[in-house]
Amino acid sequence: MTIAPEEDRLNAQIAFAVEIDKLKRVIRRNHLMDGSRRENDAEHSWYVGLLAMILGEHAPAGTDIQRVVAMLLVHDLVEIDAGDTFIYDAEAVAAQADAERAAADRIFSMLPGEQGAQMRALWEEFEARQTVESRFAKALDRFAPILANHHTEGGTWPLFKVKASQVREKVRIIEEGSASLGVYALELVELSVARGHLSE
Amino acid sequence: MTIAPEEDRLNAQIAFAVEIDKLKRVIRRNHLMDGSRRENDAEHSWYVGLLAMILGEHAPAGTDIQRVVAMLLVHDLVEIDAGDTFIYDAEAVAAQADAERAAADRIFSMLPGEQGAQMRALWEEFEARQTVESRFAKALDRFAPILANHHTEGGTWPLFKVKASQVREKVRIIEEGSASLGVYALELVELSVARGHLSE
Ligand SMILES: [Ca+2]
Repeated sequence: MTIAPEEDRLNAQIAFAVEIDKLKRVIRRNHLMDGSRRENDAEHSWYVGLLAMILGEHAPAGTDIQRVVAMLLVHDLVEIDAGDTFIYDAEAVAAQADAERAAADRIFSMLPGEQGAQMRALWEEFEARQTVESRFAKALDRFAPILANHHTEGGTWPLFKVKASQVREKVRIIEEGSASLGVYALELVELSVARGHLSE
Repeated sequence: MTIAPEEDRLNAQIAFAVEIDKLKRVIRRNHLMDGSRRENDAEHSWYVGLLAMILGEHAPAGTDIQRVVAMLLVHDLVEIDAGDTFIYDAEAVAAQADAERAAADRIFSMLPGEQGAQMRALWEEFEARQTVESRFAKALDRFAPILANHHTEGGTWPLFKVKASQVREKVRIIEEGSASLGVYALELVELSVARGHLSE
């Protein structure tokens, strides 16, 4: 493997920087907390990255929070090509894996070799959920839309006819990353049910 | 100083999380790189945070990049109250300091005491530009809109009648944080002048 000269490295990094601007145009299902519009992947990535900094004490002791932040800043880049998948659409979720892998091949390989490999490794770690860092990162990724839905009269839940049982199942992913956030998320779910914003 | 019980801490952190969602609705002057719309502060914060990870090797040796990332994720939170200031509007920039300080008082004090102080310290460090981390962070904050303008036929430059001499002055802030990014930014500026997207 040859190391690219310094100028080539910077040019590759800038090309990557121009490419990832597209994440600002990938639209998610959930809305902002004032209900004004749907959220995009870039602002979502900022939000969960900052949540990791704020809620880090609710991860298991010894969790490397800075790695969690890094993981969350890159976790959705593959959606530039593959698009956002609604987690309650089981068929779409299954088809998504191949598309995301192809996207990772294209996008991370724009960077200089070892740097692209490092970024891709963060994404693979996030997806595999085998480390405390990735389990906490995924927990925050699931926690954020529950918080948003709770603050927008159910948000995507009534809109896409999602049932409380389905949401409770997703809360397990949060519990696996953070016991206290899992408890808190379940309380939000039950409160939403009680208010009639989420149906059994 | 009393330490809040665990549940109160989490409630305070969640109230902060709900509050900062508003950053997604603070609109900046510059446009996305496809020119489709103006950028918001939340997606901008994600973008520069990820730029720090990608361009970290262009900071002085020994720069703590993870601290730079953290700083960039919080650097615009005060704009929830104070709004975005166009850096070429000297009068507005002068009036902004007090408004941002009042915003910092309100927003960071929503967090548990020592955590709010830590987050505020990151913001103060960013503003003061006395450390290599804050100088590199500020360099990226200035670099991103130049890259965006360069990719949108001058973007905000012709729109707000900004002159090349003014942009070259702003490039000095980039040079102070990263010699190589300073050189690169100046090349973008001269290229934009040559293409007629920025006037002398
Ligand atoms: Ca700003």
